[in-house]
Amino acid sequence: MISITIIGYGNVGQHLHNALQNASGVGVQQIYNRSFIKNLNTPQTQNLSDIVEADVCIIAIPDNLIGDFSAKLPFQNKLVVHTSGGANIDALSKNNRRGVFYPLQTFSRNTEVNFSNIPICVEAESNDDVTLLKKLGHSISEKVNKISSEEREHLHVAAVFVNNFTNHLYHIAETITTTHKLDFNLLKPLLTETANKIKNRSPSQVQTGPAMRNDSKTIEKHLKLLEGSDYKELYKQLTNSIKSSGEL
Amino acid sequence: MISITIIGYGNVGQHLHNALQNASGVGVQQIYNRSFIKNLNTPQTQNLSDIVEADVCIIAIPDNLIGDFSAKLPFQNKLVVHTSGGANIDALSKNNRRGVFYPLQTFSRNTEVNFSNIPICVEAESNDDVTLLKKLGHSISEKVNKISSEEREHLHVAAVFVNNFTNHLYHIAETITTTHKLDFNLLKPLLTETANKIKNRSPSQVQTGPAMRNDSKTIEKHLKLLEGSDYKELYKQLTNSIKSSGEL
Repeated sequence: MISITIIGYGNVGQHLHNALQNASGVGVQQIYNRSFIKNLNTPQTQNLSDIVEADVCIIAIPDNLIGDFSAKLPFQNKLVVHTSGGANIDALSKNNRRGVFYPLQTFSRNTEVNFSNIPICVEAESNDDVTLLKKLGHSISEKVNKISSEEREHLHVAAVFVNNFTNHLYHIAETITTTHKLDFNLLKPLLTETANKIKNRSPSQVQTGPAMRNDSKTIEKHLKLLEGSDYKELYKQLTNSIKSSGEL
Repeated sequence: MISITIIGYGNVGQHLHNALQNASGVGVQQIYNRSFIKNLNTPQTQNLSDIVEADVCIIAIPDNLIGDFSAKLPFQNKLVVHTSGGANIDALSKNNRRGVFYPLQTFSRNTEVNFSNIPICVEAESNDDVTLLKKLGHSISEKVNKISSEEREHLHVAAVFVNNFTNHLYHIAETITTTHKLDFNLLKPLLTETANKIKNRSPSQVQTGPAMRNDSKTIEKHLKLLEGSDYKELYKQLTNSIKSSGEL
């Protein structure tokens, strides 16, 4: 039985708690959160000094708070991990054995998550701790990978492109459609298929559209339609980027 | 029974043919294509002058060829439609009654398509023809919308954002991961969830990440990691665009 303490009950903490409390061979023995959590079966505390020792203490708080918080934990030489894609393992205090347990997914409140397909990226300072984190990862997911802090940095940049930036393109499309009294839902099957298309093929192989076929007439028309919009420059940049990256 | 002739057997023509030949109340009587199509049960021709009249002649060829080709059809006053998101209804010759039958989806060879969820955008010059195209659309899809050429222009720009540009972001993420010997598959659950997340919510409501929370430390780190890459400028632009569009 791997005993767990979870620090922070935001999106990540909450979803991890849901997954881990149902995992076999794992016991969540306590959750620390600044404010009281209603309707929680797991023991909880709001006092830092009451945080109990566990095989793995999972810190799921904002990146900029990881350092200070981990230095204040009331125990030493236990395995303490953060869950961040953007923070180095060194962000954690040296008071404890350090590690990372990063579920590569976007979490929203009130959206259920099936962890079995979510890649868990683990890192630790010793092989024993890597083994322990891999075991913990496999209790909730089929995909557990040892990823160094340096690798995770690049993964995180790439994640920003497929998640935040992609969502922003959706937002732009929504703005364009609603501005012209069109239903954004019309575009949803297209954007779903765009994501599905690359399940088994490289995005460079499935590119289509005016930029890819160098259709300057359509590109000009689109730039004219975007005249005066904040998105004209972005259309240009993305079009040029497609042209120069040699997608098929 | 609505009789159909399909002109062009590229991605769109092929997928429309597959869908329409199985639709009830519809009969595909002929396919015209420049080259001979192997293993086709439907009658076919490579001669323009042999193209037969039908209730609806569907032209599924590149935008820049629609005008010339439609002017050469060997009949008059029949309903002739193109399938393009980017072309105006006026692109068609006036020799026949004009219309548009635009399935708002991205099609690839060898990828099966379920038309029932694909929005079909129809347009025609008379109410009778709109009714006919709506009927034809409903034979393969649950979602048929009357969309004017002007509306379709904006829809097409928006489609470029959620399809071609999004696919390009996937391509960038693939480049970043493979450059650093990381498996691009690690990002696929994330990008799928990014698309799924907006099924019932606005993309502006589900945005996360360093740009949204104005995390300049992470943004700086990412720009440093992208130093010397073609994608640094795009990262900057997209980050600024998120900041200035006030996503939550």
